[in-house]
Amino acid sequence: MADDRAVRGQPLTAQVVAVGDELLLGSIVNGNAALLGRELTAMGLRVTRAVAVGDDIAAIRDAVADAAGAADVVVVTGGLGPTSDDVTRDALAALLGTSLRRDPRTLERLAQWYADRGRPLVETAKRQADVPDGATQLENMRGTAPGLRVELGLTRIFALPGVPHELGEMLHRQVLPELSTGGVILLRVLHTAVAGEAAVAARLGPVEDALPAGVQLGYLASPGQVQVRLLCSAADPGAAESILRRVAERIRALLGSVFVGVDDDDLGQVVHRVLRERAETVAVAESLTGGLVGAELTSRPGASDHFRGGVLAYATDVKAGSLDVDPALLAAEGAVHPEVAAQMARGVARRLGSTYGVATTGVAGPDPQDGRAVGEVHLAVSGPAGTVVSSPKLTGDRHQIRRLAVVHAVDVLRRVLLDLPGYDDGELL
Amino acid sequence: MADDRAVRGQPLTAQVVAVGDELLLGSIVNGNAALLGRELTAMGLRVTRAVAVGDDIAAIRDAVADAAGAADVVVVTGGLGPTSDDVTRDALAALLGTSLRRDPRTLERLAQWYADRGRPLVETAKRQADVPDGATQLENMRGTAPGLRVELGLTRIFALPGVPHELGEMLHRQVLPELSTGGVILLRVLHTAVAGEAAVAARLGPVEDALPAGVQLGYLASPGQVQVRLLCSAADPGAAESILRRVAERIRALLGSVFVGVDDDDLGQVVHRVLRERAETVAVAESLTGGLVGAELTSRPGASDHFRGGVLAYATDVKAGSLDVDPALLAAEGAVHPEVAAQMARGVARRLGSTYGVATTGVAGPDPQDGRAVGEVHLAVSGPAGTVVSSPKLTGDRHQIRRLAVVHAVDVLRRVLLDLPGYDDGELL
Repeated sequence: MADDRAVRGQPLTAQVVAVGDELLLGSIVNGNAALLGRELTAMGLRVTRAVAVGDDIAAIRDAVADAAGAADVVVVTGGLGPTSDDVTRDALAALLGTSLRRDPRTLERLAQWYADRGRPLVETAKRQADVPDGATQLENMRGTAPGLRVELGLTRIFALPGVPHELGEMLHRQVLPELSTGGVILLRVLHTAVAGEAAVAARLGPVEDALPAGVQLGYLASPGQVQVRLLCSAADPGAAESILRRVAERIRALLGSVFVGVDDDDLGQVVHRVLRERAETVAVAESLTGGLVGAELTSRPGASDHFRGGVLAYATDVKAGSLDVDPALLAAEGAVHPEVAAQMARGVARRLGSTYGVATTGVAGPDPQDGRAVGEVHLAVSGPAGTVVSSPKLTGDRHQIRRLAVVHAVDVLRRVLLDLPGYDDGELL
Repeated sequence: MADDRAVRGQPLTAQVVAVGDELLLGSIVNGNAALLGRELTAMGLRVTRAVAVGDDIAAIRDAVADAAGAADVVVVTGGLGPTSDDVTRDALAALLGTSLRRDPRTLERLAQWYADRGRPLVETAKRQADVPDGATQLENMRGTAPGLRVELGLTRIFALPGVPHELGEMLHRQVLPELSTGGVILLRVLHTAVAGEAAVAARLGPVEDALPAGVQLGYLASPGQVQVRLLCSAADPGAAESILRRVAERIRALLGSVFVGVDDDDLGQVVHRVLRERAETVAVAESLTGGLVGAELTSRPGASDHFRGGVLAYATDVKAGSLDVDPALLAAEGAVHPEVAAQMARGVARRLGSTYGVATTGVAGPDPQDGRAVGEVHLAVSGPAGTVVSSPKLTGDRHQIRRLAVVHAVDVLRRVLLDLPGYDDGELL
């Protein structure tokens, strides 16, 4: 069935089964399901369901059986480790109706791995060498537990570790290469900044009403950043690419200055790239964001080419002492003020010798400060052409306001770098 | 069935159905499933499965039907919004075999909401007022789309918005209050820092071998921080509490100084609390972490009581100019050196007038720097009793190394604050 579909150019379907009590208890978000969704989609598969189940043999067996009944490919992640609650091996044996045998070569490799680290190979850890009859092992280059590959009817089942970097490595090297298909699904992501989902969607009504066949449009909102996502199914990459290019151009024109970039070019990447291309530098002066703007601007390799450093001026006197903000201004207006932000930006650029200075001040909450309401935020960017200040009213809890302030601050920098106008409030609703 | 179970003290079971193409495409992690897992577990329910499906009427209908067949309570999240891909309402109508009617009062409320914001109520947005026959509406205090409540056989189904803060509010006010049960499940989380999962598990072997009835033990590892999770089912909170207290005490003794705290007392919270209690202050001097240590230390309300600020000394000359690191040392050894970290910590504490200085320097990668390998990291904490330097070798990609460096740096501060010894390498394997 699987191969026939590929020949006919229909996408293979895939389902994900993530194993672990912590997923159901909510102690951890299911990042592995997202990783698998991205990778399988990029490979041209259509992911139709992702299930999380606990560390329970029957629950895992049933979930894998359901998934195998509905999809061409099932990827199971988690439950292969050394501890007693790792029971994915047992569940696969139960599914196949076979028993587990202990693979002597794997056992030898495990003994060596633990010996190299001066640790005993305890009995429960030896279970990592167990293989259900009818399954084959997938080598784990980054950890101790091998993966497993099983065929059930026409469905291929891959059981991979739950440790993300082990999962990613095994997926790329041993799973994806055998899943290439005839048709393609291309995903194009258009990034926006500082506009709300409704505002973006309202502008794109004309596009939504006239989407070409095979194209789906969706929105994904995170604080301050809405992605417009286009998914295109077509017979070949060239056809998909040409359809997507046309739609994306239209969207770009409708979005105006809140449009940031395509695919990898999100807000942070655009700023990173432009600074790099121009060999210009930036420094930050942060109050309410406490280091988050610096963390964002240094998150990409090569940041040291353009990020000089910064001053976290959390206490008010640090704004005067380390950034030369006018003490009289601080005394008269408090720390949450547009002119304070402007002086912070200029102060850090002067002190650290950077082309641009980016500053944040405001009230993250939960309580008001200096008589200013929670969500009052002032962001400034100084540069060769002067200083730009933006003073949005942000909403949400402390965490959200800090995150939004970072997006707004980096977006002011983007607008200054690209010589774009500031937004007006109508763009942001 | 549901009520009988509660009377007999058996936990109600719950399943989660999260709706949205973006979950399957992997553009977003399923944070709502984690939120629901935590909240439902805390309420005494046992979450047995979490499913993600796309924006597709049949897929949602089937997933909700499966969940309703297997659990007492089903919480659906997502697909209730104003855009055309929001089809959870239609799926519930299909499940009930009924049709949708448009609720006039909701329509009026929507018209008002959009009018207040100067925006038109477009046709697709009116669908938020649609209710399947047989369902009741749940008021949304924070957004436009009401939730829905449906009974199918003995199972209660709640459909809630996918916007996290709307979901949380409706869950607390309208769902959880009707789900109280007879028996209880208590979760206790024991936080550790800088030890690996295997090292923690190896120490806890004796506890795992002799767990009291009704207690489950699991591990949850994130970079540099392993949680030991105890789940206890008992007839009443007092019994569960007393069992958990005994097991937790034992674990604490076995873990030694890598033990950090219980439940809310994770690494960041412990440091926050201790600084606050003592009215002492801290400042940071960050190189490879680029602001992440500051962001962590300011993430909690009240941080301004003890966080003075900091210097992001990313460029090497900033370490000399803004932190008084000896230029001869930088010239001889480069920026990645234990003594540079020590001088950075002392420099920032002196300049900003804080009790403690916390410094990070090292190589986050992907490329080596100044002849130092990726993962070489030096962390220093200066304080009234002198300066402590820790130089772990960290592994992972750029993002992981930066995250691990933050955990290690904050943990050195914890050890200094609590007068604990540094760890030896044997604790960390």
